[in-house]
This record gives sequence, C-alpha cells and structure tokens, in this order.
Amino acid sequence: MDLSTPKGTKDFTVELEIIRKKIVSEIEDIFQKYGYEPITTPIVEYWDTLKGKYGEEAENKLIWRFKLPFSEREYALKYDNTVPLARYYAKYRPLLPFKRYTIDRVFRYDEPQKGRYREFWQADVDILGSPYPEADAEILKVFNEVFERLGFRDFRILINDRRIMDTIFSGFGIEYRSKVYRIIDKLDKVGLENVKRELLEFLDKDKVERIINLISLEDKEALEYISRFKGVEEYVEDIKTIIDLSGSNKIIYKPSLVRGLDYYTGMVFEVVYNGYPGSLGGGGRYDDLIEVFAGSKVPAVGGSVGINRVMDLGIDLGIFKVDKKTYTEIAVIYIGDTFRKAWNIANDLRKEGFKVYIDLMRSKFKKQIEYAISKDIRYLIIVGEEDLKENMVTFQDRYLKKREKVDLKDLINLLNKKISNRSG
Amino acid sequence: MDLSTPKGTKDFTVELEIIRKKIVSEIEDIFQKYGYEPITTPIVEYWDTLKGKYGEEAENKLIWRFKLPFSEREYALKYDNTVPLARYYAKYRPLLPFKRYTIDRVFRYDEPQKGRYREFWQADVDILGSPYPEADAEILKVFNEVFERLGFRDFRILINDRRIMDTIFSGFGIEYRSKVYRIIDKLDKVGLENVKRELLEFLDKDKVERIINLISLEDKEALEYISRFKGVEEYVEDIKTIIDLSGSNKIIYKPSLVRGLDYYTGMVFEVVYNGYPGSLGGGGRYDDLIEVFAGSKVPAVGGSVGINRVMDLGIDLGIFKVDKKTYTEIAVIYIGDTFRKAWNIANDLRKEGFKVYIDLMRSKFKKQIEYAISKDIRYLIIVGEEDLKENMVTFQDRYLKKREKVDLKDLINLLNKKISNRSG
Repeated sequence: MDLSTPKGTKDFTVELEIIRKKIVSEIEDIFQKYGYEPITTPIVEYWDTLKGKYGEEAENKLIWRFKLPFSEREYALKYDNTVPLARYYAKYRPLLPFKRYTIDRVFRYDEPQKGRYREFWQADVDILGSPYPEADAEILKVFNEVFERLGFRDFRILINDRRIMDTIFSGFGIEYRSKVYRIIDKLDKVGLENVKRELLEFLDKDKVERIINLISLEDKEALEYISRFKGVEEYVEDIKTIIDLSGSNKIIYKPSLVRGLDYYTGMVFEVVYNGYPGSLGGGGRYDDLIEVFAGSKVPAVGGSVGINRVMDLGIDLGIFKVDKKTYTEIAVIYIGDTFRKAWNIANDLRKEGFKVYIDLMRSKFKKQIEYAISKDIRYLIIVGEEDLKENMVTFQDRYLKKREKVDLKDLINLLNKKISNRSG
Repeated sequence: MDLSTPKGTKDFTVELEIIRKKIVSEIEDIFQKYGYEPITTPIVEYWDTLKGKYGEEAENKLIWRFKLPFSEREYALKYDNTVPLARYYAKYRPLLPFKRYTIDRVFRYDEPQKGRYREFWQADVDILGSPYPEADAEILKVFNEVFERLGFRDFRILINDRRIMDTIFSGFGIEYRSKVYRIIDKLDKVGLENVKRELLEFLDKDKVERIINLISLEDKEALEYISRFKGVEEYVEDIKTIIDLSGSNKIIYKPSLVRGLDYYTGMVFEVVYNGYPGSLGGGGRYDDLIEVFAGSKVPAVGGSVGINRVMDLGIDLGIFKVDKKTYTEIAVIYIGDTFRKAWNIANDLRKEGFKVYIDLMRSKFKKQIEYAISKDIRYLIIVGEEDLKENMVTFQDRYLKKREKVDLKDLINLLNKKISNRSG
C-alpha cells in the first residue's frame, strides 16, 4: 500500500505540528497586536473566482483546478489568500480600513523542490482602504516583528516599487516590461550574466546595459541612482517614508525585486535569508485587484509569511528544535488494582487544567514508566495500593530525579507550584 | 461578478471566525488535558488512499475526487481525519498507544442543507493501540466535557455496539445486515413507521416485528432487553463499563444507532441535541481500519466534533453571541500634527503586548472616533498637540464613559491595570 502523501504535500508529525502551532501562535499574536481581525475563506473556490487574477503561468500550470466526476461547475483550490480577500470584501463590504489576517493553506501545482510545496501554509495580513505609505509601513513593521520574534537574526526585507520600475523602464523605451520583470526578478537565483543573456535575446545592447546598470545596485546607492530619474520623486519619497516609519534596519532597497504576481501595482517586498533559495514571505500593494470584484477602487496592501519555509529554514538553523514530543505534563501511573482510583486522580487533575496522561492499555508498571519516559512526560504520580491506604501517592519529577510521598489532598497545591504556565 | 463561495462552503467573517477560534481553542484545550498530541495531514490525498474505506455511497457520490488538466494521478480531498490517521500510523509507526488530535477541514460532496456542508471543520480525537473499554470511555468523557464546556446543556450521547447488533440480528436470521443498518440508522429522521415500511420491502413480517421491537426501546429498558440475548454478554459489560467510567449522565443506550461509515467494528456513538437534525459529533471503534494500511492489527477508537454544526446550533441557541467584532483593545487617536508621536505610542503599547489600532487613512479626529466606536474598541488614547507639550495624553474608557488626562510615563501602568488578560 502506498503510504505517501501527494508530491509536494506533507504530514505534520507531532514534533513538527508542535513547532508549526508555536510559529502560528507567535505570528497570530503579532497580527492581533497590530489590530488585524481574522477571517477564513474556503479552501475550494469556483474556478471563475480565481481566473484571470494571477497571470499566465499560474493560470495555465499552477492552479489546482478541476471538475468532479459528478459536478457541473469547475472548482479551484485557493492559490493565495489575497484573491479570496478581494472577493470577500466585495461580498460583505466591511468598514474601511479593513485590516484582516488569515492563516491557511494554499495550493500551487509547482514542481516540488526545496522550499517549494504544492500545499503549504501562509499567514496573510492586509489593509484594505488606505492608499498611504503609513499602511505599507505598518505591513513591513509587522513582517519585521514576525521574523525578529521567531528568532531569525540575519533576514533582510527587500523593497521596491513597481511604479518606479515602470517609470524608469518606460524612459528607457522598453516594451515587454512584464517579460523584463520576470527575467530580472530571477537575478539572485541565476546571476547577472544569465539575466543579461536573456535580456539580449529581445532587447538591444544599449537598453540591456542600462537595465543591468540599474539592477546591479542596491540599497542607498540604488536609491540615489534612481532618484536622478524624472517622475519617480513621489515614489522614492514613499519608499523613504516606509523605511523610516517601519523602524526596521533590515529593509534594503533592491531594484531587481518586482515579484511574480500580476496584481501588484506599487510597493513590493520580500523577506530573504542569506543562502536560502526563494523568499520567506513577501507582498506588496495591489490597488486595482479589489475593483475587479467590487466594481469600485479600493487601495490595498499586504503580504504573507510562508510558514512551511520559515519552519524548514528555522529547523535547519537550529532556531526551532524538533524535540518536543508532547504537551502532556503529568502521567498518572497505577500499580496493582488501583486503576479506578488513578483514573479519578487523573480526572481531578484535568479539572484543575493540568495536561494528564493515564495508561489505557492495562500495562504493567514498568511499561507505563517506559512510555512516560519515551514521551518525555516530566511529572509522574504513582498510585500504589499500600500508599493509598494512607491517602498518599508518590510524586516524581523526572528532570530533577526527585521522588516524594504526597498526601492526596496536597497534590494539586504541589503541582500548581511546579507547573505554572497552565491553561484551563 | 459572482461573489459566492461554492455551494456548501462558507466564509467565516470576522464575527464568525472569532467564534470559531474560541470553539477550537476550548476543544483543543480539552484534548490536550487528556494527553492527546496534534498532527495535521494534507487536505489533498491520493485517491488510492481513500478508495474502498468509507462504503459505496461515499465512494461514488461524496468524495471530492479529481484529476487536474495537467496531472497524471488522481487526487481526493480528505473525507475525514480518520483514514489519513490510519495512513499516518502505518507510515510513521508512532509508539502505542498513540493519542492524537486533528482539527481540520474535511470535504463531502453532499446535497447542502441545514447542518450539511461540503467543506467543514472537524475536531478529531483518537486512541490507537488500546482494545479496552477504558479507551472508549476516555473518548466519551472527552466528548462529554467538550459539550459541557461549550455550554450545551441538553445534549445527549447515544451509544451502541455494532457487535451487539450483529449478534442479535444474526440470531434473528437476518441477511443484508448492512442494508438493515442503513435503514434503522435513519429512525430519528424518518420515524418508526417509515423504517418498518422500508424493512418490509425485503424482510418477512416476523423479522421486521423483532427489529422494530428492539429499536423502539432506549436506555436502561433497551440494555435490559438486549441482555437476554446469548453471546452479547461481554459487549453489554463493555457498554456498562464505558458509561460508568465516563462519569457522564448524558449517555443513552440506543439500539437504532449504528452510524453510516463502513469502518466501525464495535462501540459507536453520536452526540445529538433535542430538535437538531443530524449529530453534532460522533465516532466509534474501528479495530480493522489501520490493518489495511499497516498490515497488522491495531485496535482504535475515536470520534470527531462537527465544528460547523456546533457553531450553527450554538448561535441559534444564543450560546455563542455573534457580536464580537474585534480583538483590538485600544485605539490611539491623533489630532492635528501628532501622527508620528501617536504612531510611536501605538508601537510602545504593542511592545507591552496590548492590541492596538491606529488610523492609517489620515482621517480627521471625528472619523477616527467613529471608527473605534463602530468596531467597539473599548479604550481610546487621544494624542493632542497641547497635551503633548506637557507629555500628557487623554485616556478614555468608552464603556465606563470616563475620560482622564494621563502622563505618558504612567500610561502603560494604567493600561495594565485596566486590561488584565493579555498575551505577549
């Protein structure tokens, strides 16, 4: 029997799921601190909803699109959380600005490779309604805080503005701009020489020189260089405001950054990590997308964190340790004919909010202990017949290698002292 | 433009998503208290993985099953979390007992109606490895606690055992048992007369009488009645142990309950609520399913909570109020030329873990206040030019209708006193 999940998808085993949930909860906490509200849209959308929003490649090769043997309409699995947000806005018309977050799976039928999944988790934050760089700045501030909080030290946030590139390239007299964008966007992956070669296939040498000149620069140098062009003043001012307000020292202006999706109209950004292929997150301004659904223009800016990549890289870097096997704090162990009493003790502790395991396999004492050890459950409460006669149990802290007899009526007090961070 | 989600799917708007997240977090807390560990399997599985596990109807009509225009293999969306768990076990062979939970969406191409979705959330708990009624009892105890905690007073947990029905029906000389099960399982929906009529189509009058006799009974009467049959002693004993250990007074023995899925082999249960069509959750023992994937027998028992139905009914009953529009606690309001200062104050408060909104629309004072009111953000911090000269801001508690001037250096202290339950 084939036990594999489909290519490009993965099981989150207990150890991985504990990490994933931790990441999601940190990110969600940050999103909420900045005043974003949660929504969740379906995994399945009508194909018509996604059609024509992402560009040719996505549409022809990457969207999970299908009919069922017994369905009439064509369906698609969500490709991102942005187009569904646009549909959502048009349908419910929430008060503007609408600041929302969504943490959900998206689906792209890409060729699986390192960091490239066909089903993966994204954490999206977006602001609908504000055309101002303050909104862009808040998004970048949120992203900066996410990566700081998760413990990535050496990340960088690359930033650019599509309007800057449009203006300059139009000054260069360059047609086929979207083709040029696709090529220069691969700069970090394929290198300057390959970009040059590709551009030379359809542009004359002079134009290619100018493009190469521009995209070889970075950060302050690049900002200074582009500032010489006419018509970009306002956009450069915006970039400076965004960097300034965001308060992040990780942001770098990068002319080669344009991003693949069709719907971006202004600022674009990507979070990268030295040596990691592809981005850990990114986004930008998409002032025209909502109009497609809503019929009227609603400026919008946002981005998504690629949770699978953050996990993979964080594990590689040792930021996230794949060692936590359980949330369980306490194992109640029974010896002899004490199961019923142990069962009651376990349930009394659960009432107090403790996370408690009790064997349901009628296992011998030794086997129960072995299980608790292999799951790395820290505290043991051993219920023996002799002890019970005096209303006592044995409490063991496996980490401190300490055992003590405890009166049953003092047990909850003792555990409350030992285990502070409790839910329930 | 069609703004609808596919039939049988739904958007969780902010108000609904806040409720959904609350429900999920309560359920998850309970699952963890009982020592269950999280896993998540993909939404998309190979069709081969799901094929032949659920029975004819599911297989031919209900499973979302498809190929992509450019894919070779056939895919399916997960139909439940149980078959993926069986695959998971076979693949990773976690230590037994394996107690895991999964809260995820599943997909069934059913005819949408009240409480029937094509994409919906389920919260699953399962124990792999234990053949004993203690395990069944723990699952029922967890379910009991979930519905108690969520605030459903008048729920009932119906319970039966497929082995009891098999034994009795075989004693009746009844063939086509699975057909009979499908019919009697609809008792509460269609009534005794309709069940009788349907059975009479292929069974003689005497047999139908006996079946009707049996399934007219409930609870103690039913348990007493079935105890007279030979060969069911052990199973009846198990039922009694389960009810006893679970400590729930909501469990009712119900001979007509058999449940639709093919894979159940022993105890089955369903959570129902007076007047609500269909169940709010359910499950049972499936001792043969894992073997299909793992090649060796692993006893298993578990169940799932239907989150969409719990939400829908809870909202109808007034248990969950659709009124919370935001998690945001504080709005920082700027007047005049104080945006930059207000931005910094907002960020300082976020550093302390508060959930803070600041306008990014360059709105006038009045508009900012109106927004905070319509979102029902309780606390306002008003940043005015005059106040700032003395390092003061105005603090307003909208609920208590109180305003006071506060020195900026005392602001965090004040807020910590007002807002106790904070994250971060």
